[in-house]
Amino acid sequence: MQGTWATSAGLDLHLELSGTRPRAALESALREAVRSGRLAAGTALPSSRALAADLGLARNTVADAYGQLVAEGWLAARHGSGTWVAEQTVPVPAAGRPQAGVASARAWYDLRPGFPDLSAFPRAAWMAAARRGLAAAPARSLLGYSDVQGLPVLRTALAEYLARARGVSVVPERIVVCAGFSQGLELLCDLLRTKGERTLAIEAYGHPGHRQIAMSAGMRLVPVPVDDRGAMAGGVPPDGAGAMLLTPAHQYPLGVALAPQRRRLAVDWAAAGNGLIIEDDYDGEFRYDRQAVGALQSLAPDHVVYAGTASKSLVPGLRLGWLAVPDRLARDITEIKRATGRVSSSFDQLTLAEFINSGGYDRQVRRARLAYRTRRDWLVSELRRQVPGVSVAGIAAGLHVIVRLPAEVAEEDVIARAAGRGLALEGLASCRAGEAGGVGGPGLGPALVVGYATPPGHAFSTAVARLCAALRDALG
Amino acid sequence: MQGTWATSAGLDLHLELSGTRPRAALESALREAVRSGRLAAGTALPSSRALAADLGLARNTVADAYGQLVAEGWLAARHGSGTWVAEQTVPVPAAGRPQAGVASARAWYDLRPGFPDLSAFPRAAWMAAARRGLAAAPARSLLGYSDVQGLPVLRTALAEYLARARGVSVVPERIVVCAGFSQGLELLCDLLRTKGERTLAIEAYGHPGHRQIAMSAGMRLVPVPVDDRGAMAGGVPPDGAGAMLLTPAHQYPLGVALAPQRRRLAVDWAAAGNGLIIEDDYDGEFRYDRQAVGALQSLAPDHVVYAGTASKSLVPGLRLGWLAVPDRLARDITEIKRATGRVSSSFDQLTLAEFINSGGYDRQVRRARLAYRTRRDWLVSELRRQVPGVSVAGIAAGLHVIVRLPAEVAEEDVIARAAGRGLALEGLASCRAGEAGGVGGPGLGPALVVGYATPPGHAFSTAVARLCAALRDALG
Repeated sequence: MQGTWATSAGLDLHLELSGTRPRAALESALREAVRSGRLAAGTALPSSRALAADLGLARNTVADAYGQLVAEGWLAARHGSGTWVAEQTVPVPAAGRPQAGVASARAWYDLRPGFPDLSAFPRAAWMAAARRGLAAAPARSLLGYSDVQGLPVLRTALAEYLARARGVSVVPERIVVCAGFSQGLELLCDLLRTKGERTLAIEAYGHPGHRQIAMSAGMRLVPVPVDDRGAMAGGVPPDGAGAMLLTPAHQYPLGVALAPQRRRLAVDWAAAGNGLIIEDDYDGEFRYDRQAVGALQSLAPDHVVYAGTASKSLVPGLRLGWLAVPDRLARDITEIKRATGRVSSSFDQLTLAEFINSGGYDRQVRRARLAYRTRRDWLVSELRRQVPGVSVAGIAAGLHVIVRLPAEVAEEDVIARAAGRGLALEGLASCRAGEAGGVGGPGLGPALVVGYATPPGHAFSTAVARLCAALRDALG
Repeated sequence: MQGTWATSAGLDLHLELSGTRPRAALESALREAVRSGRLAAGTALPSSRALAADLGLARNTVADAYGQLVAEGWLAARHGSGTWVAEQTVPVPAAGRPQAGVASARAWYDLRPGFPDLSAFPRAAWMAAARRGLAAAPARSLLGYSDVQGLPVLRTALAEYLARARGVSVVPERIVVCAGFSQGLELLCDLLRTKGERTLAIEAYGHPGHRQIAMSAGMRLVPVPVDDRGAMAGGVPPDGAGAMLLTPAHQYPLGVALAPQRRRLAVDWAAAGNGLIIEDDYDGEFRYDRQAVGALQSLAPDHVVYAGTASKSLVPGLRLGWLAVPDRLARDITEIKRATGRVSSSFDQLTLAEFINSGGYDRQVRRARLAYRTRRDWLVSELRRQVPGVSVAGIAAGLHVIVRLPAEVAEEDVIARAAGRGLALEGLASCRAGEAGGVGGPGLGPALVVGYATPPGHAFSTAVARLCAALRDALG
């Protein structure tokens, strides 16, 4: 639950409620807001009806919370005059009291990339699949220990889905289920090291978290340049790289597809025995205007590891990803999983298998694709209308776009101005390997990586308006 | 689903059905049984009613499967004469056909330790908790990335539970949720290595999987002797050990509690700054006859990591465990989790939090404790009655006992005789550090580690009977 509401004094206040007890969470959030001074004495609170509607709570829940806080002295109320913040004479509650919820001090809106629309997660359909999956599962499937590679029922469902939807060439025996791509990458780095490989070629602009995982796993990183036709602008991967991590369908963060001749070049490099390609297909399901870009893996299934995830198509919290690996590596990776005790939850695996088999996954992807496309169209049209000084790129797919700034505008300046307006943004520089990875690469001009999936529907237009305002400010 | 049924010809046949489509799984299992010769031509099958009851399926499901296999030529049927295995003239189905289920070639009964009764998992109560937990959760909690340490709602629930049920001294801020103790141990070894520690003292008899995980994480293992008063029979831990992995409440596999003076000795060793104790409380919930043994951790919360798990109290497939760590280490461990992308499923975390908060966890533990105690009593009384030549130890708690063999009887002999009777057993030698860990330790006499939780209720007495028969054979 989260919501932003305007008090009658015109104050925007963002309450973020956590925990399973809405009333306790709301009480705690309000208490914290009063204590911290974010809600000053005398501030009028919205009616319980209005706040309940904003937060998606029952009206009684809000009324009860108000009543409790009046009783505790945080708030004051008079019949007919509403509720307001009391002068603070009450002592701060004893420390150590369980904190059922906190009022967030974070930015109120967030257009940073990396997350799907969490509020669009199909809870009811997922629970129905969980119920069916759990009811039908043999007790042994709940065991988990014996299915280190992933439950067979899920690997079968994934093999069918990946072949159909992403053109992956795979059988269930070549699929390894993992706890998101994070664990998949860690496993692959561990595997490379057991084979004596210690150097991983990465895209010069990419996901900082992935670089961190690879380095934690003991790999040395070397960058391959990227441009508007994808990775390897310079030709072939660097000498000495035993593997190469690519985002062929939708380069992260530039948002372009790897050009056909470069796909060929990369596959030839791998097929000649030079090394393994790791294809990070993090949001391959989301294509809008252009032809589907099939998996690179199908060009050389014996030399490419295809990696997919439920983090964008569903939610990251599921921690489910999958690798389609060359035949010769399936056993090795499974053995590493076994030796290190890295097994995914059987419950989520059973549910995802049932969700895929029942068509729920396809339905959710279709629904989300439509919603994201609408958001993207709105974002792009607003930017073009309100801020003609920027150009927007990488719009054909995925959940983010690149907003290129004029060369004289600093990313940090736009980010700071947006923060002043309660909007969190991310600059392209933060994706540069040199920043976090200790390796260099050619720099691209200033730009923002704008994720448009995250804000809940009702907050999206406000977030975009703030973005445009911050850009107008910065561009003068 | 699994079941053992006797055909009218007196043949015991174990069918193990996997997958979410019972009919397809049953068909596949029967097909495989016929093809492999386990069901010979002419063998009469049980009535669909009887088999349905045995397997917990609808009668129509079995009747439909029989009908399909008759149509395929595997079986034959005549009204009034039942169904039997046909003479095989049909070709083997095309390879590559999805295998919805397989007839298991594994041992039919299993008394190896390490697993709870999977069939006792409270599916309905768990699903209800999942529904409530998911419905009440703010969308952000599904995100996962931001709660690397574990969802606050679960850490709060665990802190309360562990303090109440296990005497652990902890606040939510000191809890780290992990993917079972496997991941917990891996994280702790990674932590030790960042602090320059490379030597872990382990019990000379213990869980082979844990030794493997610690070694995979780069630790050198040194054994501490164990006897019938627990670990450290020789006094203090070895010089140079930066940490010590203990099972104080219920030594694995010997089943004894760490003697009070040794608890003190261990804690003094740690509190003097010599190293960290890792307290593996894998089945602390299951105590039968004796006083509860509280957590060692409460004696020195700044020097002991308490580790618990849902693998025995619920099922291993959940992959949920928890560490209560010294204050100074909570952030370090969380940072290792973050850097390596090791985050647990939010869905299971939300469900477990709700399951604990609603009292479901306590109810399940109480119910399981009663059931396991009944099983233990049966096992011990049968052994004493039928095989007076063995002695039974470690019976006060947990899910397994030690069956000590006369010195002249080899573990392997009993295990082989049991296998011949379709029963899987484990010997004490397989727990010895020297066997799998490359480190030595004083040997104990021949014994079996008999887990009594695993067989489904209807199969338990048969499993025990086979155990007694195998022992009688071996003891002559």
